[in-house]
Amino acid sequence: MPVDAKGVNGSEDVITVESSTVNGRNRAEQHPSKTKLALQAVQSLGNAHHHIYLYYCGSCTCLVRGTCSFPVAYMGDLPCRVCLSLVFTGRLVHYAKVIPPWKFWKDAKNICIMVIILLTLIDMIIYGSLKMTGYYGVRWSRVLRPLFLVNITEGRLIRRSFRSIRNTLTQVLYVFLLFLFSILMFSLMGLKLFGKRNFETSDGKPYFTNYLDILFDMYVLVTTANSPDVMMPAYDFSVWFSVFFILFIVVNTYIFMSVFLAVVYNNYKKHLKDEVKKLVRVKRYKMVKAFEILKVLMGNEYVIMQSDWNQLVRMVDPSISSSHRELLWSVSDDSQNGYIGKFAFIQLSDLLNIKVITLKSRVHPLKMCLPRLYSSAASRVIRHAVQHKAFVFFYDFIILVNAIFIGLDEENSLLSSVEWVFLGFYLLEIVLKLYTYEPRSFFARHQFWNWFDTTVIIAALLATIINMTLISTEVYNSREVLDIVFILRVLRLIRIVDSIKRFRAIINTLINIGPTMINFGQLILVVYYIFAVIGMEVFKNKIKFYNSNSSEPLSEFCGNDILKDSAFVKSKYCKNNFNNIVSSFILLLELTVVNQWHVLATGFTMVTHVAARTFFVVFHIIVVIIIINIFIAFVLEAFFVEYTVEKCDLQTSIEKKIQELDLGVQEDHIGGSLVDDMETHDNEVDSSRSSKSKSLMFKIASQRYRTVDALLQRMFEADLSPDDNGCSTDDENELDNLPPDFTFNNPGFNSA
Amino acid sequence: MPVDAKGVNGSEDVITVESSTVNGRNRAEQHPSKTKLALQAVQSLGNAHHHIYLYYCGSCTCLVRGTCSFPVAYMGDLPCRVCLSLVFTGRLVHYAKVIPPWKFWKDAKNICIMVIILLTLIDMIIYGSLKMTGYYGVRWSRVLRPLFLVNITEGRLIRRSFRSIRNTLTQVLYVFLLFLFSILMFSLMGLKLFGKRNFETSDGKPYFTNYLDILFDMYVLVTTANSPDVMMPAYDFSVWFSVFFILFIVVNTYIFMSVFLAVVYNNYKKHLKDEVKKLVRVKRYKMVKAFEILKVLMGNEYVIMQSDWNQLVRMVDPSISSSHRELLWSVSDDSQNGYIGKFAFIQLSDLLNIKVITLKSRVHPLKMCLPRLYSSAASRVIRHAVQHKAFVFFYDFIILVNAIFIGLDEENSLLSSVEWVFLGFYLLEIVLKLYTYEPRSFFARHQFWNWFDTTVIIAALLATIINMTLISTEVYNSREVLDIVFILRVLRLIRIVDSIKRFRAIINTLINIGPTMINFGQLILVVYYIFAVIGMEVFKNKIKFYNSNSSEPLSEFCGNDILKDSAFVKSKYCKNNFNNIVSSFILLLELTVVNQWHVLATGFTMVTHVAARTFFVVFHIIVVIIIINIFIAFVLEAFFVEYTVEKCDLQTSIEKKIQELDLGVQEDHIGGSLVDDMETHDNEVDSSRSSKSKSLMFKIASQRYRTVDALLQRMFEADLSPDDNGCSTDDENELDNLPPDFTFNNPGFNSA
Repeated sequence: MPVDAKGVNGSEDVITVESSTVNGRNRAEQHPSKTKLALQAVQSLGNAHHHIYLYYCGSCTCLVRGTCSFPVAYMGDLPCRVCLSLVFTGRLVHYAKVIPPWKFWKDAKNICIMVIILLTLIDMIIYGSLKMTGYYGVRWSRVLRPLFLVNITEGRLIRRSFRSIRNTLTQVLYVFLLFLFSILMFSLMGLKLFGKRNFETSDGKPYFTNYLDILFDMYVLVTTANSPDVMMPAYDFSVWFSVFFILFIVVNTYIFMSVFLAVVYNNYKKHLKDEVKKLVRVKRYKMVKAFEILKVLMGNEYVIMQSDWNQLVRMVDPSISSSHRELLWSVSDDSQNGYIGKFAFIQLSDLLNIKVITLKSRVHPLKMCLPRLYSSAASRVIRHAVQHKAFVFFYDFIILVNAIFIGLDEENSLLSSVEWVFLGFYLLEIVLKLYTYEPRSFFARHQFWNWFDTTVIIAALLATIINMTLISTEVYNSREVLDIVFILRVLRLIRIVDSIKRFRAIINTLINIGPTMINFGQLILVVYYIFAVIGMEVFKNKIKFYNSNSSEPLSEFCGNDILKDSAFVKSKYCKNNFNNIVSSFILLLELTVVNQWHVLATGFTMVTHVAARTFFVVFHIIVVIIIINIFIAFVLEAFFVEYTVEKCDLQTSIEKKIQELDLGVQEDHIGGSLVDDMETHDNEVDSSRSSKSKSLMFKIASQRYRTVDALLQRMFEADLSPDDNGCSTDDENELDNLPPDFTFNNPGFNSA
Repeated sequence: MPVDAKGVNGSEDVITVESSTVNGRNRAEQHPSKTKLALQAVQSLGNAHHHIYLYYCGSCTCLVRGTCSFPVAYMGDLPCRVCLSLVFTGRLVHYAKVIPPWKFWKDAKNICIMVIILLTLIDMIIYGSLKMTGYYGVRWSRVLRPLFLVNITEGRLIRRSFRSIRNTLTQVLYVFLLFLFSILMFSLMGLKLFGKRNFETSDGKPYFTNYLDILFDMYVLVTTANSPDVMMPAYDFSVWFSVFFILFIVVNTYIFMSVFLAVVYNNYKKHLKDEVKKLVRVKRYKMVKAFEILKVLMGNEYVIMQSDWNQLVRMVDPSISSSHRELLWSVSDDSQNGYIGKFAFIQLSDLLNIKVITLKSRVHPLKMCLPRLYSSAASRVIRHAVQHKAFVFFYDFIILVNAIFIGLDEENSLLSSVEWVFLGFYLLEIVLKLYTYEPRSFFARHQFWNWFDTTVIIAALLATIINMTLISTEVYNSREVLDIVFILRVLRLIRIVDSIKRFRAIINTLINIGPTMINFGQLILVVYYIFAVIGMEVFKNKIKFYNSNSSEPLSEFCGNDILKDSAFVKSKYCKNNFNNIVSSFILLLELTVVNQWHVLATGFTMVTHVAARTFFVVFHIIVVIIIINIFIAFVLEAFFVEYTVEKCDLQTSIEKKIQELDLGVQEDHIGGSLVDDMETHDNEVDSSRSSKSKSLMFKIASQRYRTVDALLQRMFEADLSPDDNGCSTDDENELDNLPPDFTFNNPGFNSA
């Protein structure tokens, strides 16, 4: 999707007519200025994409590597903070020049970035002066770094998620307090019941004697990380004591965690819905504004002429083919008047959000070059064979056999030569398919599995050849190349998923909710980053990893004497440390998975201070209780939408139009199952149906969305529809109802 | 709730006009036969409650203890199976006598019970003959036992859950296969990547060399039970290998488990909705039938007269006070005609489902006996003080201080005497409250916290006295009594929850969804029982627990040499065994919590056979992936209903009527928070508002439901409402649309 469509998809960034001019677009013929103005009304970010890319890259490499290097190469190897500050100061100065001052100062994001830069500068000065006088200063401003990412215009999805989470917190607080109260009570009861009984844990330590330790143990039990262990000493003594723990688990782990999920989800959804509503309102406002610019009086109502509309769509999304555009027009202008009213015009943004796949029926190049050979009987037999179901079954069988061979020992020379046979089979398949289907259709953008197959097999071929060469020359027997070969071999097997309809349906659903998951991935990464930075400040080099053949005396205790005899060392967790950003992230992921959480937490607590436990508990509360719950809830919701919601009206009307114009591709529906699969018979379209002599076909990628926003809108459609009627109010009140956050935003870079 | 109302609340059990006569109810005055018939139409189970109780108890004790004893006492100590078979055969014979044969034989449940009895008999014979010839037979029919519980009429909620789960399975299957495929692929990749690298686990065992072991390890990783451990050897070698595990966790643990939750929940809900729809249809059919019997021609439409209606309601639920009945009537007969139409009559069942609390304003008994003293200035000051907010704060403060004292060492004699002070404070509070508030209102049925307080404090008083006596007589220093004292002391602290509004709101929500949770509890118990029985057959006495001072040579290895050096023994898990039903249940609960799942599973696998792993994997799939997911989803849904759904129309109309009649109790709403709390100011009602000189007040326990069915109906109300209009079809087609399952059911016991 090109950037230009963003504005239409309901982005936060609102019209910036004053500050920008359209550059390099001279396609506007009839009413150039009007169409341009309309375009400016509906779009915002323009094509300044590479600018943002530079900023992004600059900040990303900076965040990961700690220093600037590649994108802002001339800056050399400056420390990260200096570099980041420079990048963002530059950005801010740029903004300040482009935007009128009253807008610039009303945007909370700009203020926020300025404050962060200021704080970073202060920190730099303090740190520098402390270092000069020989003291070690904590570089606390590192924690603020991720806020840069959150606060730049492009991070709007992350920002929105953060806002929703922040709004959720107050509601969660009360449940959390009650939950805490429950843990406090159970711990007190545990202390009274077991404290005087002289039980011992399996390590021989005293059991349930210190209230704070009990509290920690009980909290760990909520995470289930020490599940039967914490119970065993009491349970060994009497079966009745197990009731205490069972009650605790049922109340806190099952009921309270479900309540958390419910509360977090409910509030998150509510706030998200509000945000999406605002976005929809902004979108409609923009569309109304564009309508106001382009409208023409026709009879006694204002309308948009087809030519204006065409021009606008061409500018908004140049990648849309003219036939696709005609289809969209015929949906909007259902009665074929040559003009459309306001309501139909406003629908345009939603129309553009529906992914319509254009299937061009092209003639196979071989047919062009060698028509006689390609149409010969033998050629036709081959092509029919390839299109036959048995062809698929045959290759499924080969994949299964291959799976068995992969499982066997690869050092047997016979087996390694069998590998060549399989590679040959797979290559033959691709060649045959390319022979049968038109190559450009075969490698169309939405043909995921064709791309996947070809890439994996070509890569496997190359890797195998490289590996063979290396072995035969006996210069270097690379284990790494062999690893890649193995991975590619196994990846080949995944293809089998594509040939089972129901699997494909599930996978397509997963792909559909992919953008949402990626959005959450970003969110989690930002949170991880904050914790990683804090963790690195607090725990850096407290725990070290040595290779097994290290001569360092403390290598067995992770370089720290205190850890002797600890579960941390016994489990060989030395590599789980905060010494660099990568191992910090991996460690935080392990903490997210929760298992052995207490062993990791206790290990780090031992080498620093008891208060360090707070770090781990806070991480658990924020990431596992709040963010992962939101993730689960969101996946649930997205899945329910995929399952239950019928196609929306616009989709239906597009489909109807496609049917009417007889341009449709027949789709096979899976009876009552997951989701319509989309790549079903794409392969068969071209040649097998070319008999119908259609040069062009359309098909709707039914439940696929161009953007996360479109998915969100879809999710909350039922609640938004009442607004649908209200969208035709053309007064400026609409704008006044918008929060300032939306109206006074950073501009696009159209002027650049 | 008396049993009589069940029929009205939409039970499965349908009218049994033929087989039963109403006994001991001669209140029908005007049209005795007609009202009786109508009663029979709306009710089913009658008051044969104690019969069912006997069956239940008989089977329950049998299931738990393995033999019959208490309720069917004359049977002596027969083996459980014989006893169970006898009980259920008796029940079946009873049914066969009461129900017409064509009905009896069409009920799948009766057939099912017969088959189970037959199978049990066959098993008994086989087992007996094998035992006589000296062989040991597997008593496989024990597994069938829980099916008795599922198949009796009273287990309808469990049966419904089972049906819904069964219907869910086909949909889950495909996701499960894909999930399995993913694990197979990852395992294969793991084998290829790590198999030849000679890594070692922290126990020094070879790492990732056997495909089946890898498969098990990877499955365990899905449960997160071996989370960082399984990764560490590869991670220690190279950071890149961690990508493999992170990818695996993200794909399988997070995404697939969420998808499972989504699919399971979605299908479960769909089927449950269908079932509830059927129930609603049956309920409406019954109400229509009752209407047909009682209807009187008035003008040109059939109506129900108030007297008939009154009689019916009195019979259906004798516990409803006449004032409450009048309230309900005035809601039904909104225009005060003295009769109601069909639609209003059919609403009766829903009206009865709304819990209306009748608050009687009674005069304090002391005021009756000692009017002068009770009305004196001093007395009034006391009563005002008790009603003041400061009184609550004062006692909250005392509770907090008490919590600190409880945390301190109780062997200090000063502290133990402080305990008496606290007890005195609490007793004083109860006495003061009883002095201020009318005792019968104070101990009204819905005053949960008053009951809780009083019980706990009286119990604590008694236990403390007993404990003191035991200590002072120095005959027996009982640790058990002290335990009880401690538990009661800590329980006292829970009261503080009641004085914080938001906490009370959350707790009330939890209490509201309690019935649903209990329903699931039953379901889980049945599934646990099946697994416990299988587990006991397979693993009994393979692992034994010995006290720490046992002289048994193998006591350190759980009585089994093979377990030497295993993680199972190292973690001291010997008590986690399948040797009796109680420890089996506890073990299964530990397996449900999942942590250390692999240690437990591996331990049992070592002492039996590798195939035993299947037992644990199947348990995990069924309980954790399916049932716990449904539990979580159901709690979520119930919570969303509590949060979002407005009061339903009927509740609103009752409330309006209460307001109209000026009988309402002013309720404090918590601004936009969880749920209206119901016990808010019940205490203040009587005396403080008696100035209004009302003798009676009503209030709706807003979101509380009498039955799970009512909650379910509420949950699916939006989808059911279209049927609402269709409910007035009075032809018999309605019945024809019903599944046979509903029409031909076991009868009630009205004839007994």
